[in-house]
Amino acid sequence: MPVYLARVYVTLKPTVNDPQGLTIRGALHDLGFRAVESVRAGKYLELRLEADGQQDAERQVEEICRLLLANPVIEVYRFQVEPETA
Amino acid sequence: MPVYLARVYVTLKPTVNDPQGLTIRGALHDLGFRAVESVRAGKYLELRLEADGQQDAERQVEEICRLLLANPVIEVYRFQVEPETA
Repeated sequence: MPVYLARVYVTLKPTVNDPQGLTIRGALHDLGFRAVESVRAGKYLELRLEADGQQDAERQVEEICRLLLANPVIEVYRFQVEPETA
Repeated sequence: MPVYLARVYVTLKPTVNDPQGLTIRGALHDLGFRAVESVRAGKYLELRLEADGQQDAERQVEEICRLLLANPVIEVYRFQVEPETA
């Protein structure tokens, strides 16, 4: 079966407080990067999976995001799937 | 000054062991997603910063990644910078 590469981005919803991002912004200001207005922290995941075509791969990744990778209460996700080039 | 949006991706170097990714892969296998061959976990960050043009924004983000966001011993980073559209 062909192998696909999925790039998944999980971010907090815009209204959710992001203490990690605030901490990074504070550290950047302390380092002198005062031009940084905001930082939002999220997760980036790369999955390699076997699938029966592009559509099947996307269906699987959608379900994986929904079930495990993102918390739908506070997070949103998006992803790209492409055939893996060896 | 114009505001730019930087999307930063920080990933472990390919040779570095990724326990978080392995744990996610194990959980996915337990959930029945046996087609998943590998998972690599990384960070995704969105920064908004003021800059004196595209080149200045990229220069600042490059330095921010190098100094704070990525650990050069085990991680690599890449980023995209674009003018923020209000």
